[in-house]
Amino acid sequence: MESPPHATASADEMPSIWKEQHAQDAPPGFVPPMGPGEVAAVESLLGYEFRDKALVEQALTHGSFYYPYRPGVTYERLEYLGDAVLTCVVSREVFLTYGQLQPGPLTRLRAANVDKEKLARVAVVHGLHHFLRHKAPNLDGQITDFIEELSMYPIHSNGLLDPPKVLCDVVESLIGAIYCDSNFNQEIVWQVFQKLADPLISLETLGKHPVSELFEFCQKTRRGVKIVKDEWDKNLTVEVLIDGEMVGRATYAQKKEIAQNRAAKAALDKLKETLG
Amino acid sequence: MESPPHATASADEMPSIWKEQHAQDAPPGFVPPMGPGEVAAVESLLGYEFRDKALVEQALTHGSFYYPYRPGVTYERLEYLGDAVLTCVVSREVFLTYGQLQPGPLTRLRAANVDKEKLARVAVVHGLHHFLRHKAPNLDGQITDFIEELSMYPIHSNGLLDPPKVLCDVVESLIGAIYCDSNFNQEIVWQVFQKLADPLISLETLGKHPVSELFEFCQKTRRGVKIVKDEWDKNLTVEVLIDGEMVGRATYAQKKEIAQNRAAKAALDKLKETLG
Repeated sequence: MESPPHATASADEMPSIWKEQHAQDAPPGFVPPMGPGEVAAVESLLGYEFRDKALVEQALTHGSFYYPYRPGVTYERLEYLGDAVLTCVVSREVFLTYGQLQPGPLTRLRAANVDKEKLARVAVVHGLHHFLRHKAPNLDGQITDFIEELSMYPIHSNGLLDPPKVLCDVVESLIGAIYCDSNFNQEIVWQVFQKLADPLISLETLGKHPVSELFEFCQKTRRGVKIVKDEWDKNLTVEVLIDGEMVGRATYAQKKEIAQNRAAKAALDKLKETLG
Repeated sequence: MESPPHATASADEMPSIWKEQHAQDAPPGFVPPMGPGEVAAVESLLGYEFRDKALVEQALTHGSFYYPYRPGVTYERLEYLGDAVLTCVVSREVFLTYGQLQPGPLTRLRAANVDKEKLARVAVVHGLHHFLRHKAPNLDGQITDFIEELSMYPIHSNGLLDPPKVLCDVVESLIGAIYCDSNFNQEIVWQVFQKLADPLISLETLGKHPVSELFEFCQKTRRGVKIVKDEWDKNLTVEVLIDGEMVGRATYAQKKEIAQNRAAKAALDKLKETLG
């Protein structure tokens, strides 16, 4: 069988005639395999050579890649496993690095190093997203937007960015694949992740969430603060009122939470500017 | 210095004169050490011999044990670490046992095996709670109540019981102590936990949450269901209305969620009884 002409194109770019022909030819769940060159490139980016190369393919295959067929094996099980081992090794690292730190800040530090944004960053900084196998219509555009916005926040945006979840998933699934392939060796997982995630977020670089910072600031300076989110359903906008006056606002269509965080940041910037 | 007369008694049982004398004698944060016999007993219960015996003491010391002094080292950091490694090894076990299972049920199975109730069960089944070092006034009574109620639910109550969090914490902290002591050997952690948690909850024994079960049941049988929680603040009671009629209710003072789960269970029992 000839290899499909647009194997990695997004579903809506694919000619419908080809889709129909292909649907007749291919078994349910057929997807083109990854070439050995691609597998080697991913191994090189990760700094890990797989015994079982099929795990690389599995870790990079999104459910949409099977479109228009019945989905076969995807990265989701490996993502589940990778999430667990990553949390473990990063918890240990933070525990050892900060020998006296209490569980509250330990948990915040760990979370910042394995959250959606940090892992999505890891994916695009190392170019792992180029090897993602998907046909989700808007994903490539979302990834491009995310990469552009990243440059504004060199360490972490603390809730101002909205990274495509797939980017985070795929780092977790690759880590899960390494954990499997290494016969569940967490030291190997840690070695790989440490390089990928460098520099890890430390107590010094751990930022504050804009909403917490806003509330702390207003409490200290005895201002009344209110975040108005009720109108978001209608106008996709969240506003921040300080002592009844609108000081910050943000519009974001996809998630109310991101609009809220950006409105809080806008208010903080305005307050700091006003106070010199 | 003589050993304090009621070293492990709860704070409100302690004669106030002794508390004052002791406060003058002891350095801030002083607590009586665990005896070698007690440490050996805990090691025997866990099936693990510690190189660093101080970890056993730390893993079993609740912040209240320092009362009335400034708190010193407690189990909280070890609990943070133990939670992470436990989630990892149980995730792996479930992943390997169910080679085709999707992430949703994998996550539910993992959660059931490391949640507050399962770990609190582990603590009392093995008698680890006898070695807990605390002075929290009501804790011993809560533990006794929990042990009594446990017998009604041989595997898991799925949200009907309200286990004292300390019992779960102390299993996590002991696991964290073993992880530390074994130079972060997750295989040793798994061996110990597997024995303690036996039998693990499997797909076959994984129960349904009463609220989910109630909603599923009513959807299937085309009944309208409403859980009325608004009155809980006043009368500590949650009611379940099926097609407008009160079918189940439960009163629980400590947590609204437990009252809700028990009300849902009562409604399900009633529905099943009515339908034969």
